Amino acid sequence: MRLYDYFRSSAAYRVRIALNLKGVAPGERTYVHLRMGNQRAQDYLALNPQGLVPALALDDGRVLTQSLAIIEYLDETHPKSPLLPADAEGRARVRGIALQIACDIHPLDNLRVLNYLIGTLGVSREQKDGWYRYWIDVGFEALEKSLARDAATGTYCHGDAPTLADVCLVPQMANARRFSIDLSPYPTLRRIEAACNALPAFADAAPAKQPDAE
Amino acid sequence: MRLYDYFRSSAAYRVRIALNLKGVAPGERTYVHLRMGNQRAQDYLALNPQGLVPALALDDGRVLTQSLAIIEYLDETHPKSPLLPADAEGRARVRGIALQIACDIHPLDNLRVLNYLIGTLGVSREQKDGWYRYWIDVGFEALEKSLARDAATGTYCHGDAPTLADVCLVPQMANARRFSIDLSPYPTLRRIEAACNALPAFADAAPAKQPDAE
Repeated sequence: MRLYDYFRSSAAYRVRIALNLKGVAPGERTYVHLRMGNQRAQDYLALNPQGLVPALALDDGRVLTQSLAIIEYLDETHPKSPLLPADAEGRARVRGIALQIACDIHPLDNLRVLNYLIGTLGVSREQKDGWYRYWIDVGFEALEKSLARDAATGTYCHGDAPTLADVCLVPQMANARRFSIDLSPYPTLRRIEAACNALPAFADAAPAKQPDAE
Repeated sequence: MRLYDYFRSSAAYRVRIALNLKGVAPGERTYVHLRMGNQRAQDYLALNPQGLVPALALDDGRVLTQSLAIIEYLDETHPKSPLLPADAEGRARVRGIALQIACDIHPLDNLRVLNYLIGTLGVSREQKDGWYRYWIDVGFEALEKSLARDAATGTYCHGDAPTLADVCLVPQMANARRFSIDLSPYPTLRRIEAACNALPAFADAAPAKQPDAE
């Protein structure tokens, strides 16, 4: 397998955590520098027409894209340390939390979206930062409420073992911290983040620990 | 089960298609009028703190949110007419297509985002429409390329039976049509859309066919 990675991509960060939790080495790794625009290079677009990271190239030449699809694949092909609960309702809850982040927070604050706001709509830096904070706050407020009131929340988002939900939460919290967003209204999210980052699988996947970190 | 639905929500539309493909009646249905702001009513927020549709309340009182999590739950609990392929690589491909739409197109063109563009950033109607078209075109261009070149594409996005990928594609195509977006550059998407809409499960889930349609 070869992982197409970028230290600051929070979607790639999710896959790095999942690989670590599974104890699976991707084999080869290629760094796609998003700020330099390497994701728009012809050879990368041939591999992934979306021009986004991560992508996971399998040994048979097939290429998987979309972090959540990649992680579900890893979970199915490496059943040890499952990232989804055993019951269908639990799986729906964990996927629901992961998707709240992966659909309703992260894509709105993606680099390409911020570039469009500034480059095409001509919004100010202040407005762009306001946008960034707004979607994180809207998303985290709902997530904090859901997690705080639900007995299914444990040390981690769902019970006492890390799941796909935590794999999505931790990179989104890291993004929020990078933009100095006030996280004091989200004590449950902060508590779970700390529990996750105490595990080497999460800590070792952090952007600053990657070989391509700047 | 009780489905919280809105005729024009494309995330709810996905769940309606999935229920029809499975031959499962949700039992009760509540219509949450998004343009009237009913999703911000206290009783709905108590049910789903995100204030989005769809939500699926189970008979034991648990509430599932996020359309893809709901559909995976329905697929696991009603194995007839599977919405995911039998092989892990096929499942990753289908989930990848679904997520390309559900993460990287749909959330950017959601009502609350368009409201923020107009209400908070003060963009013009023309700029708002340009934004809408841009993210559909960026997403569809990549999707068209991926589907057109892949031998795994069949009558539908993946082989010759409808999957989660088609369940996401059809509502996104309907949105694009509603905004009169030129779909001529996407012949594969149009061909698959037509094949899907020839099936009653898809046709009956269309916004115009819902009891709350305006």
